[in-house]
Amino acid sequence: MTARDLIQKKRDGKTLAESEINFFIHAYLSGEIADYQMSALLMAIYFQGMNFDETVTLTRIMRDSGEIVDFSPLPGIKVDKHSTGGVGDKVSLILAPLVAAAGVYVPMISGRSLGHTGGTLDKLESIPGFKTRLSLKRFKKQVEEIGACLIGQTEEICPADRRIYAMRDATATVQSMPLICSSILSKKLAEGINALVLDVKVGNGAIFEDAAAAEELAMHLIRAATAFNLKTVALLTDMSQPLGVAIGNWVEVCEAIDVLKGRGPEDTKKVTLALGAIMLQLAGKASDLADGMKQLAALLENGAAWRKFLEIVQAQEGDITFLENRDKYPTPKHRLEVKAETDGYLTAINAREIGRLCMLLGAGRKTVADAVDYTAGMLLHKKIGDRVRAGEPLFTLQNSGPPPDENFKLAVRACFKIENQSVPPQKLLQKLFDAQGAHAFVEIQ
Amino acid sequence: MTARDLIQKKRDGKTLAESEINFFIHAYLSGEIADYQMSALLMAIYFQGMNFDETVTLTRIMRDSGEIVDFSPLPGIKVDKHSTGGVGDKVSLILAPLVAAAGVYVPMISGRSLGHTGGTLDKLESIPGFKTRLSLKRFKKQVEEIGACLIGQTEEICPADRRIYAMRDATATVQSMPLICSSILSKKLAEGINALVLDVKVGNGAIFEDAAAAEELAMHLIRAATAFNLKTVALLTDMSQPLGVAIGNWVEVCEAIDVLKGRGPEDTKKVTLALGAIMLQLAGKASDLADGMKQLAALLENGAAWRKFLEIVQAQEGDITFLENRDKYPTPKHRLEVKAETDGYLTAINAREIGRLCMLLGAGRKTVADAVDYTAGMLLHKKIGDRVRAGEPLFTLQNSGPPPDENFKLAVRACFKIENQSVPPQKLLQKLFDAQGAHAFVEIQ
Repeated sequence: MTARDLIQKKRDGKTLAESEINFFIHAYLSGEIADYQMSALLMAIYFQGMNFDETVTLTRIMRDSGEIVDFSPLPGIKVDKHSTGGVGDKVSLILAPLVAAAGVYVPMISGRSLGHTGGTLDKLESIPGFKTRLSLKRFKKQVEEIGACLIGQTEEICPADRRIYAMRDATATVQSMPLICSSILSKKLAEGINALVLDVKVGNGAIFEDAAAAEELAMHLIRAATAFNLKTVALLTDMSQPLGVAIGNWVEVCEAIDVLKGRGPEDTKKVTLALGAIMLQLAGKASDLADGMKQLAALLENGAAWRKFLEIVQAQEGDITFLENRDKYPTPKHRLEVKAETDGYLTAINAREIGRLCMLLGAGRKTVADAVDYTAGMLLHKKIGDRVRAGEPLFTLQNSGPPPDENFKLAVRACFKIENQSVPPQKLLQKLFDAQGAHAFVEIQ
Repeated sequence: MTARDLIQKKRDGKTLAESEINFFIHAYLSGEIADYQMSALLMAIYFQGMNFDETVTLTRIMRDSGEIVDFSPLPGIKVDKHSTGGVGDKVSLILAPLVAAAGVYVPMISGRSLGHTGGTLDKLESIPGFKTRLSLKRFKKQVEEIGACLIGQTEEICPADRRIYAMRDATATVQSMPLICSSILSKKLAEGINALVLDVKVGNGAIFEDAAAAEELAMHLIRAATAFNLKTVALLTDMSQPLGVAIGNWVEVCEAIDVLKGRGPEDTKKVTLALGAIMLQLAGKASDLADGMKQLAALLENGAAWRKFLEIVQAQEGDITFLENRDKYPTPKHRLEVKAETDGYLTAINAREIGRLCMLLGAGRKTVADAVDYTAGMLLHKKIGDRVRAGEPLFTLQNSGPPPDENFKLAVRACFKIENQSVPPQKLLQKLFDAQGAHAFVEIQ
């Protein structure tokens, strides 16, 4: 058995046996198989796919490539959320303290920004002092004591995924069902959780633009998670425009604070409450989604979620005085408000391109080695369906690196489509998937 | 333009523009694009192919990535041969001196063994002292003075191809028309030749088993070569069994010597004379193939080809006393003659597997870093169509490393199919291709 034989086998559309996947992953980790062979295999998988058994096997081998956190001594169900990635997605920052405030343990291992999507870790690290690299021991202790902890993938967790993931963006092998499934689930399984809610984004800012592909991903993830007895529910949410109004790092922390204080944009709040209610239900803390949402709304209103957020930030060495007094935070060197040039209605936003442009502005990374400008980002003053009048502010760009030039401004402006006729925005909460299949998501007013 | 975008573009079946291919190759050579991105692109090309323009562009950019030898001050047409690779293929060793003896310049840049096929360089290096790493200056001088020189790809020639080629075997991206075309032609174009004959192998020991694919490759190569004004003829030859009787390094040199002295196996001789006659015709030294073959047969008979071989070996610092007295050569530590167990006819040989097993015996390399055992290899005592009697020698294995064990012997034996009914072997010289299309190859008795 050589790496070449196995790449060829997958290239030719054949099924890899457990022993073969095991050999490939372990020889890769030991350095016997080179990065360039792994990326060739990834591309072969992109084209030929993997069947259900191969996907589950790959997930298990990746999970077992590192340590698995044991939360079993802690009573109750541990629940996490995973988003397939979008633009302006600051939900984790609100959800972790909110669900923890409701008495559910949330051990959360998040990622960094790469490509057009932001990363929870970068957003958290925009809070001065905040540490996302904690030992697994400290991670466990904080979950036990405070109810939630937000860290990055450690050296010990899923080293196979960490190395493969680092190559996928640069090799255009991200959009592959079995690779997405195994990457997400191996990490989540290693976290020691009992249940998982998935925020599967759909629309031009999502990993899959197309609803059919996003639904297929949701079903794939749920089927594979079920093979590991991980209770999983997926919510399909709209990503045909950025979520909320802020895109960046510190600006997204500020929007999260607004929501935690019972204010903030409606869409960010809605997605957060829906995902949180599912988590409460999975943890047996809510009788149904309506009950869950009611409980969570109350925790936003009465300040409990906000206090939990401060508690988490403090435990992870973040300086909460910046949260309590946001004027204290360094202002961006450049701030550019761009106005609408015509009257009409905002009918579409190219969320993916906005994500990419915010990355170029300094909010994200082009390559893993790049540094992030925490002040960089964008504020939206209009969302799809809104009336726009010439001269009204459309968006604001800000950063502290080289200021955006005229071409850049034009590129951002081109992401906004203004037409004479109004169109309603896509439904925000589109569908719910569990082991039983797809369900309509009924919104509660 | 990023590497990722271009990989994705090819992955999605789109055509890469000249500027894009240029960027990818040069950024790869400068280290800006990683091996793992190149291999992902290679796999995407494997699946999505490249159109004619892309293939020609890639070939040109690869050719221009290094030096191009200028033989124009030398009068007359410079001709080389390229084989798509087979088992027991020692034709270059005979052809270069033979065609040079007929007064045609043969500047030949060859490769090393990798996978199941042998390499001309390794065979030559089995001659004590023989140097295949010469400077381009010395290469040119020898071609001018002696008429032929056989060297390996230098640092200066096609660095793009050298780096890509080194990855293709290990990533299962060898069998791709545009990648084969660009790899072969970029190197040959950089040699400064005016005409080229291609030995396109077909059968289980060839790069393409199937005649249709081999013919497509021949036509592809000729079309692409024509775009560079390189006059090219391809001969489709049988590789459903090893060529000749020897497989290895020194054993193949010995078979080449036999042919150069007017003896040796019929099939090796036939392929060599046919390819050589095409070269003579391309160089304007023969009126037709029959004339070319007659001239060459005379040069084998009268010792001129053999003397030219000694001259070349001496010029490249090889010790010709080993050629003149082969008993002087170190004998292999182990020699194992295996006999037939049943009566019948030899109806099939798994040439690819024999090539692989000879490689494992020490004659080739599993990875580029492996050392070669020059005494290792195999002698065939029967060929397809031959009558076999139980107890008659079928093949001999030899090497100086760990001796072949019982399982190895069984694996080799399993490559030979002995049946009650005789079958005729495949036609050795199958078809001729030139810019006008396909032609039957009419053998001259």
